[in-house]
Amino acid sequence: MSYHALSQHFEQLHHLQHLGAICGWDQATMMPSGGNEARAEALGTLAVLCHQQLQDPRLADWFADAEQESSAREHKVSLAEMRRQWRDATLLPADLVRAMSLAGSRCEHAWRSLRPANDWAGYLPLFEEVLNLSRQVASARAETLGLSRYDSLLEQYEPGMRSARLDTLFGGLKSWLPELITQVQNKQRNEPMLQPQGPFAIEQQRALGLEVMTLLGFDFNHGRLDVSAHPFCGGVSEDVRLTTRYNEQDVAQALMGIIHETGHARYEQGLPAQWRRLPVGQARSMGVHESQSLFFEMQLARHPAFIARLTPLLERHFGAQPAFAPDNMARLYTRVSPGLIRVDADEVTYPAHIMLRYEIERDLIEGRMEARDLPERWDQLMQTYLGLSTKGNYKDGCLQDIHWTDGSFGYFPSYTLGSIYASQQAAAMQQQQRSLEQLIDNNLSSVFEWLQQHIWQHASLLETDTLIQQACGQSLDATAFKHHLQQRYLG
Amino acid sequence: MSYHALSQHFEQLHHLQHLGAICGWDQATMMPSGGNEARAEALGTLAVLCHQQLQDPRLADWFADAEQESSAREHKVSLAEMRRQWRDATLLPADLVRAMSLAGSRCEHAWRSLRPANDWAGYLPLFEEVLNLSRQVASARAETLGLSRYDSLLEQYEPGMRSARLDTLFGGLKSWLPELITQVQNKQRNEPMLQPQGPFAIEQQRALGLEVMTLLGFDFNHGRLDVSAHPFCGGVSEDVRLTTRYNEQDVAQALMGIIHETGHARYEQGLPAQWRRLPVGQARSMGVHESQSLFFEMQLARHPAFIARLTPLLERHFGAQPAFAPDNMARLYTRVSPGLIRVDADEVTYPAHIMLRYEIERDLIEGRMEARDLPERWDQLMQTYLGLSTKGNYKDGCLQDIHWTDGSFGYFPSYTLGSIYASQQAAAMQQQQRSLEQLIDNNLSSVFEWLQQHIWQHASLLETDTLIQQACGQSLDATAFKHHLQQRYLG
Ligand SMILES: [Zn+2]
Ligand SMILES: [Zn+2]
Repeated sequence: MSYHALSQHFEQLHHLQHLGAICGWDQATMMPSGGNEARAEALGTLAVLCHQQLQDPRLADWFADAEQESSAREHKVSLAEMRRQWRDATLLPADLVRAMSLAGSRCEHAWRSLRPANDWAGYLPLFEEVLNLSRQVASARAETLGLSRYDSLLEQYEPGMRSARLDTLFGGLKSWLPELITQVQNKQRNEPMLQPQGPFAIEQQRALGLEVMTLLGFDFNHGRLDVSAHPFCGGVSEDVRLTTRYNEQDVAQALMGIIHETGHARYEQGLPAQWRRLPVGQARSMGVHESQSLFFEMQLARHPAFIARLTPLLERHFGAQPAFAPDNMARLYTRVSPGLIRVDADEVTYPAHIMLRYEIERDLIEGRMEARDLPERWDQLMQTYLGLSTKGNYKDGCLQDIHWTDGSFGYFPSYTLGSIYASQQAAAMQQQQRSLEQLIDNNLSSVFEWLQQHIWQHASLLETDTLIQQACGQSLDATAFKHHLQQRYLG
Repeated sequence: MSYHALSQHFEQLHHLQHLGAICGWDQATMMPSGGNEARAEALGTLAVLCHQQLQDPRLADWFADAEQESSAREHKVSLAEMRRQWRDATLLPADLVRAMSLAGSRCEHAWRSLRPANDWAGYLPLFEEVLNLSRQVASARAETLGLSRYDSLLEQYEPGMRSARLDTLFGGLKSWLPELITQVQNKQRNEPMLQPQGPFAIEQQRALGLEVMTLLGFDFNHGRLDVSAHPFCGGVSEDVRLTTRYNEQDVAQALMGIIHETGHARYEQGLPAQWRRLPVGQARSMGVHESQSLFFEMQLARHPAFIARLTPLLERHFGAQPAFAPDNMARLYTRVSPGLIRVDADEVTYPAHIMLRYEIERDLIEGRMEARDLPERWDQLMQTYLGLSTKGNYKDGCLQDIHWTDGSFGYFPSYTLGSIYASQQAAAMQQQQRSLEQLIDNNLSSVFEWLQQHIWQHASLLETDTLIQQACGQSLDATAFKHHLQQRYLG
């Protein structure tokens, strides 16, 4: 009966989070700006309430009792996931949570104007405050969880992942990625490439986006597509709200963004209905989530067979032009070019951006590096991995990301874990079924069935390693990623 | 300090209600239908939580202490409004609240298919259950409040209003309204009238609606216009969400609906900023709310001077046609025609629909009439007031409204109170300033200033009678309404 009480309690929490997700989506897509202050207050009250819900004094007893009574495996796993949320909400002193939240808002808010002004000196004291508090958070978590400080933060986004393992993984990448980047650049140097000529009417871009979402199996009975300044996939799994932003001069940007978010969305829509209201029914980790968006964006949408299907759609919406030829579009979509900005990076150079951030945030949290050393270390690693300098250019260097401004240390590795998992999934799928080319030509349904069966339906019922092992025959391993890049970019 | 604690507590409640209002709006305008079940659950949890917030055991002590400490008049009034919400939430036994909610949902849900099927026999047992529980609710409220059973329900929508007063008011109306209806029909019988020829593209109707909202002073920094099956004015006062529905064949329907909801919206947007988060900062009553929408829809938008301003807008969006001539549009918008359906009724026959419902719901709740007698009584009163029969025609008779299906007895009088208050306000405004014709020609700003100063800014800081007395020099009185109808329809 305690399991039942816990379920009800967490379902109630889920309902509150549902309201927060929809109102957060509304804030980004629909709300007139004059409504922002009242909305922020309302969402603030909700956050406090959700936190209180997790601090309900009855929970400790219920957990203790439930350990005794429940024996079904799924209930045990469900219980463990509830316990994880409970633990995360209760292990920090309230004062620290409040101080962290305040310092994070202050730093993030200032960053919005300091970054365009390239003002590192103005940013540093605010960032030092955030780092200082983040270290305290990490220490408190580390002590309770029996992990290192950085690992205790990583655990929030990638349960079970450890920095020792990332060191090995990224160490492997570092041994071949820079050389690969150079080879690809040499190969691509003399390839002809036409840029599609705009303007591309936004209404047509939206119509095209909806068509491609349909092709990708998005369920419009349980979701919608809208516009926001920063694209995201929000809402709830019964009603997934994804957003994009359109650029009249660039048809690729919104379309690839939509495809990426559609990958996130299908994972959400594919979570098992009977577990949706409980922690165990949520997506497994940020890395697994990103593996789905990157599977859609990189494995599928940049595949020549998929690009061949896009051309007639592009022509129908915008008229024919030479740049829409599949060969040319494929070259456009796979152009490799080292650059300063992570979010603009191509598939091949992206991991370099992540490894750089990983090394820095790990050392910052473990106390092996100080905030003031950030620009120099950034510049040095950019030189090493991509041969670029960011000296004096803070806004395109260490000030470019929002993540650290509010203390989200430990998140960055998820992006590259996602790339690697996606490659493993694509390799396994092709080994178990047919080539991706054939699967794409065959209307993609086998692709979605495979993902549903191997990833989506398991939600958090399996640990990440087990999930990937069962799906791909091996747990985390960058070999498939390397082969994928070699084949696509040098093959 | 207890006043402070109470304020914080009610502000928190307001924040939760904010999230509910936005998610409710989303449900009606944006949500894909597959999201409905999860949304209903989430909103259900929120309703329980809001109810719990009002049942917090600390409230009783805080109220007792606050009575001692606070002396500022506004704090006393604020306290009284908090106390009213607290009382309403706590005076019913939880079992009865639950039973009422269940029976109401069941009856309302069934009504959605029983009404089109004209199935009175299927509806009756469900309605009897709702009536039975509503009588219990009324008895419990009556006992605590020291009111009659029906008055205790009326009190929910029109604080301070009593059926004895409505009997007198409606008795007065009955003495002249049927005769007036006949006279107007005779006068209008031979008036020429052209129907505007559609179709009217929905995008153009929307653009026209936005223009008219701007003309009416709607603040788009604090609100939006969208589409829903049943038009309403929702959201929060900092972010008012109004909706309409478009009919390609009828340009008047959506436009008048938008103008009506804009009246509700400007009241919300005009509520005093410093009180918005507390009960005393909310709209005074449903009747006062409706007086604002009807001021906009009836006093302003059907005024010949306003219609003259609409014609060029109509022509710009849809091209010129003879029907758009101001004289013809004025005749269209003031056509009087007794009909069976309340929501389609014109300004003159509308009160007849309300008086009929008032007499029936009063007698149902007071136990002077039973559910099974409803169709006969309905038919008899329709014959008396409008000379129409609904014998055997339940769907256009006693099954047409949603209100009673979930037990909202006591609401209907608000509509006609709104018409009467609006006429009083228009009369007072014209006496204190200039004719409505001049005010409209002068860009309406004096109209909005008068409403802001006399109605909107007072929120619930004054009792309804005081509010109307101070604004109009007299409290509730149908004389101005009678003069308005005589002048517009027979003058
Ligand atoms: Zn993503
Ligand atoms: Zn209304």
